[in-house]
Amino acid sequence: MIKSIEWTRGKLVIIDQTLLPHKLAYLELVDAEPVFQAIRRLSIRGAPAIGIAAAYGLYLGLKNRTFKNKSEFLAAAKETAAYLNSARPTAVNLRWALDSSLRLLEKVSAEPAELLERLFSHAEAIHRDDEKRCNDLGKYGAELIPDGASVLTHCNTGALATGGIGTALGAVYSANQQGKRIKVWVDETRPLLQGARLNMWELQQNDIPATLITDSMAAYAMQRGMVDLVIVGADRITRNGDVANKIGTYNLAVNCRHHQIPFYVSAPLSTFDFTIERGEQIPIEERNCREITTIWDKLTITVEGASCWNPAFDVTPAELISGIITEIGVIKPPFYEKITEISHQYHQTLKEPVL
Amino acid sequence: MIKSIEWTRGKLVIIDQTLLPHKLAYLELVDAEPVFQAIRRLSIRGAPAIGIAAAYGLYLGLKNRTFKNKSEFLAAAKETAAYLNSARPTAVNLRWALDSSLRLLEKVSAEPAELLERLFSHAEAIHRDDEKRCNDLGKYGAELIPDGASVLTHCNTGALATGGIGTALGAVYSANQQGKRIKVWVDETRPLLQGARLNMWELQQNDIPATLITDSMAAYAMQRGMVDLVIVGADRITRNGDVANKIGTYNLAVNCRHHQIPFYVSAPLSTFDFTIERGEQIPIEERNCREITTIWDKLTITVEGASCWNPAFDVTPAELISGIITEIGVIKPPFYEKITEISHQYHQTLKEPVL
Repeated sequence: MIKSIEWTRGKLVIIDQTLLPHKLAYLELVDAEPVFQAIRRLSIRGAPAIGIAAAYGLYLGLKNRTFKNKSEFLAAAKETAAYLNSARPTAVNLRWALDSSLRLLEKVSAEPAELLERLFSHAEAIHRDDEKRCNDLGKYGAELIPDGASVLTHCNTGALATGGIGTALGAVYSANQQGKRIKVWVDETRPLLQGARLNMWELQQNDIPATLITDSMAAYAMQRGMVDLVIVGADRITRNGDVANKIGTYNLAVNCRHHQIPFYVSAPLSTFDFTIERGEQIPIEERNCREITTIWDKLTITVEGASCWNPAFDVTPAELISGIITEIGVIKPPFYEKITEISHQYHQTLKEPVL
Repeated sequence: MIKSIEWTRGKLVIIDQTLLPHKLAYLELVDAEPVFQAIRRLSIRGAPAIGIAAAYGLYLGLKNRTFKNKSEFLAAAKETAAYLNSARPTAVNLRWALDSSLRLLEKVSAEPAELLERLFSHAEAIHRDDEKRCNDLGKYGAELIPDGASVLTHCNTGALATGGIGTALGAVYSANQQGKRIKVWVDETRPLLQGARLNMWELQQNDIPATLITDSMAAYAMQRGMVDLVIVGADRITRNGDVANKIGTYNLAVNCRHHQIPFYVSAPLSTFDFTIERGEQIPIEERNCREITTIWDKLTITVEGASCWNPAFDVTPAELISGIITEIGVIKPPFYEKITEISHQYHQTLKEPVL
């Protein structure tokens, strides 16, 4: 399985996903600013992957500077973390990784050099931890996929979006490895076409049958009985089970309800935002209009001066969700109490995976 | 208002819509074969417009040949009509225009030269007739649009798709002319982006506020209360009120039901296929995969060798439709008996508009 993000010889090496599938090229990042830019311009993307990148980015932003003492180091760390966190507003994993790094620093009494060392170990631990969590997500997700099933998915949630095999697409990989024959319907995922570019590439690399459709064809495929279930990822999940995910996810959820098709969300616990109750409280990133009026700034598809609206995410209300696949099992509705219970355990045992 | 199709100095002159919005260029067609090609490659498109083009195309295919008598002429006319009819399978207006031309020929006792003359007059009459019908469609459609409304539409159904002001978009033009302040949400309409290319162009030409979105954003706009009603066109309507229209239409209809938003279809009576009962009987054109794997053959958006599925249309069941706007008024559900009644009147008074 391809790795979208790796630490090699003192550098953070990522696949530049903006060039896929035409070109497999890598970026070597050695400071916080290029990490920020890589996240903002979607060279690295996917909620879990940007959390990992941000943790390494925090380390990179501090390693070439000198600090007199812990309090100076901590002040700089907070500033760099705030900067990295501002790269994208919707996915909570970014904030989660940075907050957990800062909490670590606050707890440790040590000189700047050692704090830096601990920060790096923490980033590595988040990375390894995500890899393991992906395997568990895959395992629980695969249980929901019958042999011979046609699974529809939206946006990229595979190896490119995480530190491991992925979230929603990870379930497909796990099922495939178990010998189940799976067919995947791939929503192209306008505007940035992550499905067409990234899922089709990953699935081809893994020899899994995949059929590309435009986003509006999913409903018709469902009407014709060609879709058995839908699995998507998430960028933020609230206490009541509302899910922010790539724009177009809500459209699928509505269609699943209409056609009585199961609609699953797969995400690690780091995607849950236990601080907010409902989806309306999630900030939704609105991106540049040129993502809609052009294809990757290369081909203009509409009139000059066109107005547009470009929300990068939408919110799917909990009542449309059949289950949320996590690394500790599948949460079934009603979600509120179960997620609240998990939040207590999580605070005690999971939030600081390396402490 | 721009004209997508005109007869000028012995030639059929059409806008080459494949070049819009970047370039406004015209094609001059002087035989049946280039008319067939123009329809097939979507240089001219929209159910009513291709009906008009086919009627002129039949005349053009016969005018430079010599025939001994009516029966020879009729045999050639039938052959040319069958050829033109095969250009696209879903829109019934194409067949309607050609059938009505052939019926005219069968009824008239005359020499080939006069038959040719009658064929041309018939094509012109279909053209003028569509212009008038569009005005009536616009008038009835506008009654459904309140002042200040946000109307969402899919694919192009304006002047470019018809011989007049359009069908669904015609309702917006009529409401606008009545002084109502209308805002239009324009689905880009993948794969061929008729919304982004053609609706945005038409609406800009007519100074009507329009906002472009990707197709999967419509559901989210509805969730947020930003859409008051949806109006789309149709390529074929069956006796029970099922509607074949551009792929993505069904997706909108499902979302309208979920969000309790009115969903209207606007189409002239020539779009009704009284010979079939239900939507499943409509042949659905499946087009080349390259329409999905590339943007207009100019930019490849996925891996080489990608599999895809490219139905050009989908079928919206009657039960999701709030009303069908026609040139004789708005038909409200239940549709079956009303459409059957119209089919009787239509056969008597409307089917041969110039006889």
